[in-house]
Amino acid sequence: MKSKKSNEDKEKEKFLKEFTSFVQDRGFIWGPSPEIYGGVAGFYTYGPMGRLLKLKVEESVRKTFRANDFWEIETPIVLPDIVWKASGHLDTFSDKSVECSKCKGLFRVDNIIEDVTGDPCTHYSDQQFLNAINKNNIKCPSCGGDFKYEIFVQNLMMKTKVAGKDSSLRPETATVTYLPFKRYYKFFRGKLPIGVFQIGKVFRNEISPRQHVIRGREFTQAEAQIFLDPDTKNEWERYEEIKNEKLPFWSWQSQESGKKPSVMTVESAIKKKLFKTKSYAWCVWLAYTQFINMGVPENRMRLRQHNPDEKAFYADDAWDIEIYFQSFGWTECCGVHDRTDYDLTQHEKFSKEQLSAVKEDGTKFKPHILEIAFGTDRPTLALLDIFYEKKEKEHGKTLFQIPYHLAPVELMIYPLSKKPELTKIAKKIRKELETEFDLSYDESGSIGKRYLRAAELGVPYCVTIDFDSTKKKDVTIRDRDSEKQIRVKISDLKETLKKLIKGDLKFARAGKEIKAK
Amino acid sequence: MKSKKSNEDKEKEKFLKEFTSFVQDRGFIWGPSPEIYGGVAGFYTYGPMGRLLKLKVEESVRKTFRANDFWEIETPIVLPDIVWKASGHLDTFSDKSVECSKCKGLFRVDNIIEDVTGDPCTHYSDQQFLNAINKNNIKCPSCGGDFKYEIFVQNLMMKTKVAGKDSSLRPETATVTYLPFKRYYKFFRGKLPIGVFQIGKVFRNEISPRQHVIRGREFTQAEAQIFLDPDTKNEWERYEEIKNEKLPFWSWQSQESGKKPSVMTVESAIKKKLFKTKSYAWCVWLAYTQFINMGVPENRMRLRQHNPDEKAFYADDAWDIEIYFQSFGWTECCGVHDRTDYDLTQHEKFSKEQLSAVKEDGTKFKPHILEIAFGTDRPTLALLDIFYEKKEKEHGKTLFQIPYHLAPVELMIYPLSKKPELTKIAKKIRKELETEFDLSYDESGSIGKRYLRAAELGVPYCVTIDFDSTKKKDVTIRDRDSEKQIRVKISDLKETLKKLIKGDLKFARAGKEIKAK
Repeated sequence: MKSKKSNEDKEKEKFLKEFTSFVQDRGFIWGPSPEIYGGVAGFYTYGPMGRLLKLKVEESVRKTFRANDFWEIETPIVLPDIVWKASGHLDTFSDKSVECSKCKGLFRVDNIIEDVTGDPCTHYSDQQFLNAINKNNIKCPSCGGDFKYEIFVQNLMMKTKVAGKDSSLRPETATVTYLPFKRYYKFFRGKLPIGVFQIGKVFRNEISPRQHVIRGREFTQAEAQIFLDPDTKNEWERYEEIKNEKLPFWSWQSQESGKKPSVMTVESAIKKKLFKTKSYAWCVWLAYTQFINMGVPENRMRLRQHNPDEKAFYADDAWDIEIYFQSFGWTECCGVHDRTDYDLTQHEKFSKEQLSAVKEDGTKFKPHILEIAFGTDRPTLALLDIFYEKKEKEHGKTLFQIPYHLAPVELMIYPLSKKPELTKIAKKIRKELETEFDLSYDESGSIGKRYLRAAELGVPYCVTIDFDSTKKKDVTIRDRDSEKQIRVKISDLKETLKKLIKGDLKFARAGKEIKAK
Repeated sequence: MKSKKSNEDKEKEKFLKEFTSFVQDRGFIWGPSPEIYGGVAGFYTYGPMGRLLKLKVEESVRKTFRANDFWEIETPIVLPDIVWKASGHLDTFSDKSVECSKCKGLFRVDNIIEDVTGDPCTHYSDQQFLNAINKNNIKCPSCGGDFKYEIFVQNLMMKTKVAGKDSSLRPETATVTYLPFKRYYKFFRGKLPIGVFQIGKVFRNEISPRQHVIRGREFTQAEAQIFLDPDTKNEWERYEEIKNEKLPFWSWQSQESGKKPSVMTVESAIKKKLFKTKSYAWCVWLAYTQFINMGVPENRMRLRQHNPDEKAFYADDAWDIEIYFQSFGWTECCGVHDRTDYDLTQHEKFSKEQLSAVKEDGTKFKPHILEIAFGTDRPTLALLDIFYEKKEKEHGKTLFQIPYHLAPVELMIYPLSKKPELTKIAKKIRKELETEFDLSYDESGSIGKRYLRAAELGVPYCVTIDFDSTKKKDVTIRDRDSEKQIRVKISDLKETLKKLIKGDLKFARAGKEIKAK
């Protein structure tokens, strides 16, 4: 068992090494940042390709939320500490760690135990943590030294001061999105449900940042909230539209009895009491749909229910979405929570402002909050991890086979050479296409090398302008995956490419096929 | 003179009061945030309409930079203090203030003097500041108390700690964008010029945040850099494409002699030595083009050259773009700087990493940096300020006449009533259009009131589904500015609306005009 795990680990390590160099060298993600100053663990920089890919992910998030009646807002990142006192973060948002008696390094105690035993232990008591360290004879992963027999609690908030007053950087967008509830309620003319979301940076002073951008100290969250009347949680119009969709549900009972997730309709899941309410079930469906729309394949995802012991004290229903990474295995990428009236009650208490809504009959009530919370860094890395491929046989050939409509750069414009008669046409084509496509223009290097570079960056189509273009007013389009080429009139180019990228036209039918040179 | 200024001020104050309530009540910008906790000066929240508008501004920035060969990156916000030591921010990024001896309030000394005298005094010595306070008998604006005879220097960096180490929140994106120069140089295969940009949050511990989002403590910057060989600053291919474009240049000599800006071509400006190099002149043109593309009208902008005394010590050429706000008058909204090799030299010194490039003949050199720096909050507020109009005569009628292609919401979908036969068609239309447009669906309230609400939010077109729609399969489109209505087949709706919003089709020709009911 142990040696099998080691082999798996070795394979993962080999993959991770190659994959990290692909991610860095191809301009996706660099770090830890700032690299020239040695880097600080948990901070990363998205290069030109990575930023475009992350933008595609974020555009997809926006589109999906908007199409489901969520409105985007943007709040501050830095807030006074009374907010975090009310939310509970100041008192309880912390990790437990142990210190190495030799090198004085601090390590998250659940991480170092899980790395050795493979068993989740997040919910151990301090005594259980210390017992596990002793029992498994766990040593410091940096220097091999012994750990002190003591658990430290480290708060994860990054602190600052504004005009001399204690403030903190938000560790999530969620809390800050709840605060303007009165503004929403007025703007939407006193009608519930209200859906809002926010995409933005958050900060956590993690003890041991690890697994690349999976657990960073600064990262981007995308969190959506629905404020609703608790009496209407089972009257959810949009549930009817999706109740027959099939999703891979992994109930906590199945997890405990070692069973796999079951693919079933949302309606069946409701009947089996996997969810308490239709509105919550719809949120789980929407969260799953977010990742499908981002391009994560179905077979890489599962929906995992929280064990009753694992749920936060305020949470009613709680499910996660997990994605399978080649590099790190199954990884939590999204949480969906019924937070009940916990947050509005807390902020009402601390702010002394009434945060309630009114029914048609005039009775006041405290809205409940359903929440979908995920980051955009993990799915961005997931897309790289899933669609990166190194062809072992053809040495040095690296492919990034991301779905065409999500590619960071959609088109390359290549004049065959730097001759002015070619670059003139190529630049004109660039100008006509650049408002419609994410494209790049490149005139240097052999055309073969340029095609290889494009494939490494996942560019679906290369448009090449050659000497025939000057006479026949047509160009070559090369398809990334089939490596086939067709000839298309310049006048038809924009419409043809639009249809190709949308998937409305098959490549073979888009023009006359030519043999690759 | 003094009383005239007061009248102007009163009008501005009246405008500002009405404008602020428009901006808040219509869901654009709320604050100071967090409102339920009393708010902290200099922090704001963008509501559903404000976020959409700011996104339009940011999309425009991205499109314009990308079309001009700049690549977007995303770096951390929090960086270790060695970075800010190298950049000079830790030692010199500060404001001078005076303290009220009565209420102990701290005020930026240049602000309180300028508010009374109207004269810029940013570059006064400490003694000159104190003399100006005495001479003009300036009292504390909060309590009327006397100021202490002492100048305080307050650093503007927001500090934090990461894993116990001193770090700061970036006060600009620029410095952080310089740091991965080696990565860019490798990714772009050793070829200069390299253009990069970043859009993201920055933080400044301002002593007196003021003028709404104009001077906040947390705001969004959009900053672009070109790394180039200093020997090629006058060989700038793209300059040739724009040299005949006319811009409103206000040289420092014209400013000093009380003259207005002169509209002239970029080429004339070069001949008059307003710029030292063609590459820098092109950057000034590009910065101006950014604001034109965002929708700021030409007559609201001017390009102001820095006085030689005012320039930062490292800056070679330095110009600002100013926009005229109804609420605040002429306001700096963008700076364009030739930063020479100052930054790479500093970071090379502090990081001990070589930050240089190599010419074709093998000689090493330090690239220069040309920089365009602006925020996205100021232009967002500028668009609100410029296109907001309160019709005094028709009581309560407020318009937001933003250019159609920049409107936060492009379309409203209105079933005439909540009858299922109408809402069914309306929802189907919504589903078909929502992938193409920023739209909103609303079925409550009288249609007249809904049209008024749409006009207040600047929505260009309202699509109304009425009882004729069920039989004739057509709908009404109402135009915001003309308030006219036409009838269009549902099957033609998407294409018609696309052309209307792009400006490719005139409303009167898009369908059969009908009389408003």
